[in-house]
Amino acid sequence: MKCQTALSCAAVLFTVTAAAHGAAESTPAERAVGYRQSVFHVIAGNFGPLAGMVKGEIPFDADTFAVRAERVAFLSALPLEGFIPNSRVGKTEAKAEIWDNMDDFKAKMETFQTEAGKLAQAAKTASAIDALKPQFGKVGQSCKDCHDKYKED
Amino acid sequence: MKCQTALSCAAVLFTVTAAAHGAAESTPAERAVGYRQSVFHVIAGNFGPLAGMVKGEIPFDADTFAVRAERVAFLSALPLEGFIPNSRVGKTEAKAEIWDNMDDFKAKMETFQTEAGKLAQAAKTASAIDALKPQFGKVGQSCKDCHDKYKED
Repeated sequence: MKCQTALSCAAVLFTVTAAAHGAAESTPAERAVGYRQSVFHVIAGNFGPLAGMVKGEIPFDADTFAVRAERVAFLSALPLEGFIPNSRVGKTEAKAEIWDNMDDFKAKMETFQTEAGKLAQAAKTASAIDALKPQFGKVGQSCKDCHDKYKED
Repeated sequence: MKCQTALSCAAVLFTVTAAAHGAAESTPAERAVGYRQSVFHVIAGNFGPLAGMVKGEIPFDADTFAVRAERVAFLSALPLEGFIPNSRVGKTEAKAEIWDNMDDFKAKMETFQTEAGKLAQAAKTASAIDALKPQFGKVGQSCKDCHDKYKED
């Protein structure tokens, strides 16, 4: 499973991989930005409905919650490899502090993975939203802790 | 698992979900486009290194291949819900024929899922790239069959 955390692997990825689906990405750094932003976009697209159910904006559906929580958990392992060295380029909200504090950044990403994994696990058997709210809160907090420090507003 | 295929679920998703990560998406259709393009972007980012190994541009690494093949398989279930009705808007390569032939489009997406799942399964035990080339070819063909008919060049 080395490529889930090894940035060296990612450097290879963004060197050999052509720009995806016609996107205007011509350098490895630009491709890394496009990749990580796409991962976050898909995470947000699945996290949003979970938040909607927690807030009561969408009726709770246990199967839907479980599917989307599983996606968030699966995807939580993917963003890190997009943060290759010198990839604070173009339109990015990533602060320079990420690369100055990569060990801390990685630790925060791992917390996100851990908490998202616990939510996905809990969602497999939960039959009411109240049972999922505490762990949902921990996932959201893990997002916020990282955003507060490393993402431009 | 109803939300992996039900477009009604997707309509809810793109109605309630705020635009992801500051992207300029203000309508459900625009959000659907952004979501599906992001999914394809992440798929391509993981499929690219598999192609690189098949072509001999990257040294074969069984663990890396297995991780990325698993990601492609997991993600192959996600694009469909982004093709909600009337979402051929903005900068999109999706042809109108998709919505005129939704059953065929879904079938092609399902073929992609099936073939990607087989590749991920084979990759768990394969120790040489030659053993994976035939199934990799089937995945690539499933991409091409859909792109040829439903994606603008």
